[in-house]
Amino acid sequence: MGRQKIYLEKLSQFFQLRNLLLRQALAECLGTLILVMFGCGAVAQQVLSGGSHGMFLTVNFAFGFAATLGILVCGQVSGGHLNPAVTFSLCLLGRERWRKFPMYFLFQTIGAFFGAAVIFGMYYDALWDFPGSFNVTGPDATAGIFATYPASHLTIVNGFFDQLIGTAALIVCVLAIVDPYNNPIPQGLEAFTVGFVVLVIGLSMGFNSGYAVNPARDLGPRLFTALAGWGSEVFTVGNGWFLVPIFAPFLGAIIGTMIYQMMVGFHVEGEVRDRTANRERENVPLTDTNSNAKSKEMP
Amino acid sequence: MGRQKIYLEKLSQFFQLRNLLLRQALAECLGTLILVMFGCGAVAQQVLSGGSHGMFLTVNFAFGFAATLGILVCGQVSGGHLNPAVTFSLCLLGRERWRKFPMYFLFQTIGAFFGAAVIFGMYYDALWDFPGSFNVTGPDATAGIFATYPASHLTIVNGFFDQLIGTAALIVCVLAIVDPYNNPIPQGLEAFTVGFVVLVIGLSMGFNSGYAVNPARDLGPRLFTALAGWGSEVFTVGNGWFLVPIFAPFLGAIIGTMIYQMMVGFHVEGEVRDRTANRERENVPLTDTNSNAKSKEMP
Amino acid sequence: MGRQKIYLEKLSQFFQLRNLLLRQALAECLGTLILVMFGCGAVAQQVLSGGSHGMFLTVNFAFGFAATLGILVCGQVSGGHLNPAVTFSLCLLGRERWRKFPMYFLFQTIGAFFGAAVIFGMYYDALWDFPGSFNVTGPDATAGIFATYPASHLTIVNGFFDQLIGTAALIVCVLAIVDPYNNPIPQGLEAFTVGFVVLVIGLSMGFNSGYAVNPARDLGPRLFTALAGWGSEVFTVGNGWFLVPIFAPFLGAIIGTMIYQMMVGFHVEGEVRDRTANRERENVPLTDTNSNAKSKEMP
Amino acid sequence: MGRQKIYLEKLSQFFQLRNLLLRQALAECLGTLILVMFGCGAVAQQVLSGGSHGMFLTVNFAFGFAATLGILVCGQVSGGHLNPAVTFSLCLLGRERWRKFPMYFLFQTIGAFFGAAVIFGMYYDALWDFPGSFNVTGPDATAGIFATYPASHLTIVNGFFDQLIGTAALIVCVLAIVDPYNNPIPQGLEAFTVGFVVLVIGLSMGFNSGYAVNPARDLGPRLFTALAGWGSEVFTVGNGWFLVPIFAPFLGAIIGTMIYQMMVGFHVEGEVRDRTANRERENVPLTDTNSNAKSKEMP
Repeated sequence: MGRQKIYLEKLSQFFQLRNLLLRQALAECLGTLILVMFGCGAVAQQVLSGGSHGMFLTVNFAFGFAATLGILVCGQVSGGHLNPAVTFSLCLLGRERWRKFPMYFLFQTIGAFFGAAVIFGMYYDALWDFPGSFNVTGPDATAGIFATYPASHLTIVNGFFDQLIGTAALIVCVLAIVDPYNNPIPQGLEAFTVGFVVLVIGLSMGFNSGYAVNPARDLGPRLFTALAGWGSEVFTVGNGWFLVPIFAPFLGAIIGTMIYQMMVGFHVEGEVRDRTANRERENVPLTDTNSNAKSKEMP
Repeated sequence: MGRQKIYLEKLSQFFQLRNLLLRQALAECLGTLILVMFGCGAVAQQVLSGGSHGMFLTVNFAFGFAATLGILVCGQVSGGHLNPAVTFSLCLLGRERWRKFPMYFLFQTIGAFFGAAVIFGMYYDALWDFPGSFNVTGPDATAGIFATYPASHLTIVNGFFDQLIGTAALIVCVLAIVDPYNNPIPQGLEAFTVGFVVLVIGLSMGFNSGYAVNPARDLGPRLFTALAGWGSEVFTVGNGWFLVPIFAPFLGAIIGTMIYQMMVGFHVEGEVRDRTANRERENVPLTDTNSNAKSKEMP
Repeated sequence: MGRQKIYLEKLSQFFQLRNLLLRQALAECLGTLILVMFGCGAVAQQVLSGGSHGMFLTVNFAFGFAATLGILVCGQVSGGHLNPAVTFSLCLLGRERWRKFPMYFLFQTIGAFFGAAVIFGMYYDALWDFPGSFNVTGPDATAGIFATYPASHLTIVNGFFDQLIGTAALIVCVLAIVDPYNNPIPQGLEAFTVGFVVLVIGLSMGFNSGYAVNPARDLGPRLFTALAGWGSEVFTVGNGWFLVPIFAPFLGAIIGTMIYQMMVGFHVEGEVRDRTANRERENVPLTDTNSNAKSKEMP
Repeated sequence: MGRQKIYLEKLSQFFQLRNLLLRQALAECLGTLILVMFGCGAVAQQVLSGGSHGMFLTVNFAFGFAATLGILVCGQVSGGHLNPAVTFSLCLLGRERWRKFPMYFLFQTIGAFFGAAVIFGMYYDALWDFPGSFNVTGPDATAGIFATYPASHLTIVNGFFDQLIGTAALIVCVLAIVDPYNNPIPQGLEAFTVGFVVLVIGLSMGFNSGYAVNPARDLGPRLFTALAGWGSEVFTVGNGWFLVPIFAPFLGAIIGTMIYQMMVGFHVEGEVRDRTANRERENVPLTDTNSNAKSKEMP
């Protein structure tokens, strides 16, 4: 046991990264890998089993709890965004530095790419056994296991609106959960709550195009399918649909941030600011920004 | 970064509302919007996909967790009622001021209206693509996506009883969860527990007419459908059914409040009052209303 | 507002019960009413809708979360047993007084009776509309909405074993959750965890006869159906099957208590006893029975 | 009551085991029994009811929450591994002693054996009533209720990779949950979170061969079926498939441990080590290894 401890200590020192941003980006990469591996795995299970081992509800559960687990794995290191739109929204509010954004985006996409690769390897035999092995379109298409494609009824304008609203809903809920002035849940349950948000979005906004609401989650696996045998059709299908889940979520993040801040965020923040200002005027030392009017009676 | 902070601070001060009641009403509005957006979105997904992307269980999950998320978003500001019947019950018990009731009712209905509007926009293409695009009745009716309609077997009397019992069950559970004398769950988990209540009501009381148990959740979307193309039939169908989910829940709230108070509430409250009275007689300073008999040994 | 407070105070004093046992029994009654109302409601929804608004999984969810809600409503007052077999097991272990047992059994059965009555009223129209309105046996039987009946493949011996094992599994998990020497979950989450136990028992032990595992939950609704129109056949069917869910659970409670105590309970209890004894020998004041070896270094 | 207490005390002292390792092994045995009893019970319910009382999703829920309950029952005593691959991974990291590994493996397998036996007894009538009572292969096979068998599309190489990836994913998530340097969830919720991990693995990695990812969970019930009437075919089918869920999980545990440590674990550990070292250089007494840079301002 003693020798093992020494060996583990050495290993730990050898592999330890001292660059904080790289460490955070690596953690985001692993978190997004977990999100996509479990999420797309559930789609693969549903599609390849022909419905016997899955349905749309199981995909929703898988993406929801996969988000929870991905955040749990990397949250203490990197914040557990798993989604460039979330990173973007937090940068907008000045809670994360802007230089994190491209780095996170890149590593989230890489993680999603490898998450898709793991599922591809895991269901390799099942894919070859499936009628439409490497089809991008048609009733037996399998490209939808990895990236999202629009349903036949969807126009590109409605699809853009779909992704925009889905991301805005995600951002409103995520901001409420992590708002330092509006702490609605016990510490440590953020990951579970975000998982419920992703689950609910899937239950109610998944019919149009499969609720990507995440540029990295869609782009990484799409790149993988292009290389793994589905070919460049994954980019050309649906009049360049692949651009929608890349750009609409960022616009949705802006709108979601604005809605949350205007209807709740600015007011709770302002209340804390007002209270602090009052106290300073009254020469009361600031001890707890959350204590209420009773604290005035203390001195 | 510095400039961004200053700009955000200015934005925050510009938009900050200082009227508490208006701020609370706005928060209720956003919370109810989220409830209806996710809840009715799940119904839309089930109906418009013909069952491939949803079933009654997914609607139940969506309404349950949507209630959780709506409460999380606005709970710290407004209490997170999302339902005029809940506001009514808390006013009955003297825990909220009566003047809040009309204001909350109005903004909850407005929030529900816009929640329905978001889902209408999101599934606009899918609605037009669906056989019974704007039917209020018949096998392909879509009005049920937004407001509730009675099943064919239901008489108006049984329907009234259905809404009354559903709301009473909701109120009994909600009162137990938020009773200050009977704190059964850790702080911060109220929203999740209320979500489970809504889920269970959907699982067991949803067959008759779709468990509105909430005047705002039903009236707001019904008004929207009347304007958006379904027409005035949404009010006339079922011999004026639309009145049932408006009035029955308030009667249910009264009954639920009475049942909870008589079987549990008054007794736990009385126990605390008795203990407090005992202490005052014994001249012991009141420090903790929850401490038990052991505290008598302290002085 | 002032007048309302005074009036509420008077009401509270008027209705307050000062007999602790009666208060606890009333709370158990309400808790079991909630369990049966939501649980049997889900069965009614599944049966009467012909599967469109429910399936066996929704029944499992409903019974599980109904147990959670029932415990939350009454737990702070009465402990939230909702099941005479649980009361029996806690009496066996000396954690509850034996005289509570008949009182709890009676009021739990009364609560279950009225829970069934609420569901009967709620789905009255749907029951009359259903082909086999008041049938106890046959493909369209509705008696199974309220009480449990054995599947056609089940012999009475296997059925007894089924109820015995189901209750034993319930008791092992419940004892682990509430064992004061083995506190595996944060305070306040007991109700949710017991809900999961009931859910899992339904998922894996519900095929033979519908997992009553609770004499009150089965007897109360069965009495109600006998009176409400199904007649005495509910007692005679299956060679007196109704006796099995009354007696087997108590035997299961004994076996479950023994298994838990022998494999886990006695050892964790003994460890605490040993540690306490050691400390007393060493003249260390006993402050925390849960602190570990480190505490020896303190003095 | 007094006499009962004395009798219980005597029973407790009579049965108390003082050997820690044996006590822990017994607790693991009960925990794994619960895991397999509920998990395989759900498979039995699905298979024997022909789908009316279960589907693949209910099996996933049952295994997930069964893992939660198994961990809750034994976690305070033995750590709640329930899986030799988890024990192996914790031994690799020096968090458990190696001599625990064979003892845990043995008792976990014994627990799984008896868990299968309980389900066999419970569904004995249903098994005989089922068309393919004791078939190992074919459309009506029942051997899959207890142990896992590969789907027809699966080669042995892909099957090995399937088990390897599944276990690696389990280990990455479990290590994140129990890492003392990366505490992402509130104390006491570990069991629930591991349950979600098992649930998600079932939702997304269950199609190939039924996600054993646990040598004990597969070997114990397979031994039982060999003895109970299915015969030696359970070992010979699929070119010795039974070896895959025994050996692949250990390789997966090694890979999962490496991935977690390299991408997250070593860095959070190193950060704590660096901070501790800095403090010691600055002569600051070490009080809290989790406090951040602000603590430097304190002295």
